[in-house]
Amino acid sequence: MSPNRLEAFSDGVFAIAITLLVLDLHVPEPHPGGDLAHELATQWPSYAAYVVSFLMIGIIWINHHAMVRRLATVDHTILVFNLALLLSVGILPFTTELMATYLKETDGQSLAAAIYSGSFLLMSLIFAAMNRHILFAKAHLLSTPLDSDQRRLIITRGITGLVPYAVATALAPVSPYITLALSAAIGVFYALPVASAPEGTYS
Amino acid sequence: MSPNRLEAFSDGVFAIAITLLVLDLHVPEPHPGGDLAHELATQWPSYAAYVVSFLMIGIIWINHHAMVRRLATVDHTILVFNLALLLSVGILPFTTELMATYLKETDGQSLAAAIYSGSFLLMSLIFAAMNRHILFAKAHLLSTPLDSDQRRLIITRGITGLVPYAVATALAPVSPYITLALSAAIGVFYALPVASAPEGTYS
Amino acid sequence: MSPNRLEAFSDGVFAIAITLLVLDLHVPEPHPGGDLAHELATQWPSYAAYVVSFLMIGIIWINHHAMVRRLATVDHTILVFNLALLLSVGILPFTTELMATYLKETDGQSLAAAIYSGSFLLMSLIFAAMNRHILFAKAHLLSTPLDSDQRRLIITRGITGLVPYAVATALAPVSPYITLALSAAIGVFYALPVASAPEGTYS
Amino acid sequence: MSPNRLEAFSDGVFAIAITLLVLDLHVPEPHPGGDLAHELATQWPSYAAYVVSFLMIGIIWINHHAMVRRLATVDHTILVFNLALLLSVGILPFTTELMATYLKETDGQSLAAAIYSGSFLLMSLIFAAMNRHILFAKAHLLSTPLDSDQRRLIITRGITGLVPYAVATALAPVSPYITLALSAAIGVFYALPVASAPEGTYS
Repeated sequence: MSPNRLEAFSDGVFAIAITLLVLDLHVPEPHPGGDLAHELATQWPSYAAYVVSFLMIGIIWINHHAMVRRLATVDHTILVFNLALLLSVGILPFTTELMATYLKETDGQSLAAAIYSGSFLLMSLIFAAMNRHILFAKAHLLSTPLDSDQRRLIITRGITGLVPYAVATALAPVSPYITLALSAAIGVFYALPVASAPEGTYS
Repeated sequence: MSPNRLEAFSDGVFAIAITLLVLDLHVPEPHPGGDLAHELATQWPSYAAYVVSFLMIGIIWINHHAMVRRLATVDHTILVFNLALLLSVGILPFTTELMATYLKETDGQSLAAAIYSGSFLLMSLIFAAMNRHILFAKAHLLSTPLDSDQRRLIITRGITGLVPYAVATALAPVSPYITLALSAAIGVFYALPVASAPEGTYS
Repeated sequence: MSPNRLEAFSDGVFAIAITLLVLDLHVPEPHPGGDLAHELATQWPSYAAYVVSFLMIGIIWINHHAMVRRLATVDHTILVFNLALLLSVGILPFTTELMATYLKETDGQSLAAAIYSGSFLLMSLIFAAMNRHILFAKAHLLSTPLDSDQRRLIITRGITGLVPYAVATALAPVSPYITLALSAAIGVFYALPVASAPEGTYS
Repeated sequence: MSPNRLEAFSDGVFAIAITLLVLDLHVPEPHPGGDLAHELATQWPSYAAYVVSFLMIGIIWINHHAMVRRLATVDHTILVFNLALLLSVGILPFTTELMATYLKETDGQSLAAAIYSGSFLLMSLIFAAMNRHILFAKAHLLSTPLDSDQRRLIITRGITGLVPYAVATALAPVSPYITLALSAAIGVFYALPVASAPEGTYS
C-alpha cells in the first residue's frame, strides 16, 4: 500500500476525532431565572479538556505526517501499528468527556484524570513504538536512508517525550487539576514555534 | 509540509463540522394529539442558526482555499495558526446549538447570541491574523510573490470584513434577533455573485 | 478553484452525511422480560428510512461526480450552488429521523413523510438547477464542449427525474407508507444496472 | 468513474464509521459515593465490542484497497455493490452498541450477539460477492489481467474466510460470550503479521 493512502485514511480519522470532540460540549438546559453565564462558567472543565485534546490530536497529526513521509511503501505490520494508533486517537472524545465530567467530582476525579492523560500517554507510546519499528525493523522501506545516529536521535527524543505524559498521569492521584494543567502545558509547548515539534520530540 | 496535505486535513474538518451541524436539529417527541407542524415551526431558531452556520463554514472553506493556494510550503507556525482556525470552526456546532436553544428564552438570550456571532468573529479574526502572518512574515513561502500593495489590499479588506461580525456581536444585548439577522445577512452577502468573496474581503 | 477540490470537499460531506444516518438507529432500552426481537421489529420504519436515505445519498454522489467531471474550472456561483446542494444533503439525517419517528404515529405522519420525500425533491431540484446553470450559463467552463442537443437532453432527463419525487411528496397526505414505498422504489430503480443512472436522468 | 474517486469516498465512510464507534462509549453519570472504577469495569462489553468493530473496519479497509487497486475503471454495477458494502459498514456503530448493551442482559443477549457477528458476516458476504463480480464478470476492467487460477484462489479464500463469521453467528444462541470471543479472535488473527490478510483470505 502506498503511504499516501495510509495518510489519507489516517487524516480522515484525525479530522473526525478532532471535530467530534465538540459533542463533549453540552448546551445548558434553559430554565426561567437561570444564569447562563454562570452555567457556562461552571463548564470550564469541558472547555479546558476540549482545547487540550484538540491540541493533542493536532500535534499527533503533524508528527504522523513526518513519520509516514519517510516511507516509500507500507507493509502489513505498519498498517496494524497504524490501526492501533488510530484506535488510541479514536477514543479521545470519550476520555475527554470522562475528564470533563469528573474533574470537579469528589469521587472518581483522580481515576478520570489518570485515564485522560493516560490516553495521551498510550497514544504517544504507540507512536514511539511504531516509529521505532519503522526506523529499525523496516529501514529498507524508507524513501531516503537515515544513518543510525539520526535514527537513534529520533527514537531517544520520542522516548524522552513520553516522560511528561507519564508524570501527568502519575500525578492524577495527587490532583487532577495538576494533570490537566500539565497536559495543557505539554500541548502548548509543542505548539510553540521554538519547540517546533520535530516529530521524534513529540512522542 | 505541503499545502495540499494541510488543505486535505482542513477540508476534512470543515466538511465534518458543516455536516455535524445537523445534530443540532431535534425531532420533536411525538405525542397523541400533537401538532407536528406547530412544533416544527417553533423550532425556527434551530433552522435559522443551522443555515447561517452552514453558510459561514462554506465561506471560510472557500477563503481558506484561496489563502492556502498561495503557499508553496507550510511551516510550523502556519500549522499552529491553522489548528487555531480549525478549533474556531470546530466549536460552531456547539455555539449554533447554544443560539438555537436560547434565542427565545428570556434569560440568557443575549449572551447566547453574543457567543454565536462572537464565534464567527473569532474565526474571522484568526483567519485575518493567519493571512497577515502568511503575507508579511512568511512572504518567502508564497508560490508567486505579491507586491506590498496587493498584500496590504488583502489585509485591509480582511480587517474591514471583521466589522460586520463585531457589530452583530455588539448588538446582542440590544436584541439577539438583530444579531441573528445580521449574521444571516453577512452570510448571504458573501454568497452573492457580486460580492464574490475575494478572500481578503471575507475575513 | 479546481473541480478536484470541490469534489473532495463535497465527497467529504456526502460520506459524513451517509454515515451519520446510523445515529438515527436507536438501541432499544433493555428491560427484564423484554422481547428484543419484537422491539427491533417495531423499529422497521427506522431501517427502511435509513436504507432509502443511504441509497439517495449514494446516487446523488454518483451523479455529482458526473456533473463536476465535466467542468474544467469552478466559479463562485457554482460554489454557492454546490453549498446549497450540500445543505440539502446535510439535513437528510434529520428528515430521515423525522420520517422514522412519525411514520406510525397518528398525528404528524403525513407531514413527516412530505418533509422526508420533500427533502429528496429539494435536493434533486437544486441538482437540476445547478446542472442547468453549468450547462447553459457556464458552458465556457466545460472541459469538453457539449452541443445544445446533448445539453437539452441532460436537462430534460433531469426535470423528468423530478416527477417521481414530486409524486411521492404529493401522496404523503394520502398515505405516508406510499411515500416511503415510492421513495424506496426510486432508489432501487436508479441502483439497477439497467437504469444505470445517466446523471441527467437522476435529478 | 476512476477507482481513485471510489476509493476516496469509501475511505471517507470507513474513517467516519470507525471513529463514530466512540459514540458507543458512555461516560457513567457521576453520583456521590460512586465508584468510577467499578462502573467503568462493568462497561467492559462496550470496550470489547468497540475494539473488535474497530479491527473489523480496519481490516475491511485494507482489503477494500487491495480489491479496488486491481481495477482500471469502475462501472455502475461496481458502484452499487460498493454502496451495499458501505451500508454494511455504516450500520456497525449500531450493531456494536446493540451488542454492548445486551451482552449481560438475560433477555435479548443471543439475538444481539447474532446481529453483531451477523453484521460482520453480511459485510464479508457483500465483499466476497463484489470481489467475485469484479474478478469474473468484470475481468475486462482489471488493470492487469489475472489468470483463472489466481482468480479462483482469491475467491476460494474469500469464501473460506466467511466460515468463522458464520460459526460465530451460529453460536450466538449457545453463548453470546463465545460469539464475541470468536469475533475478537478473527480480528486479531487477521491483524497478525503471519496471516497478513491477503485480501482474498479476509472475506
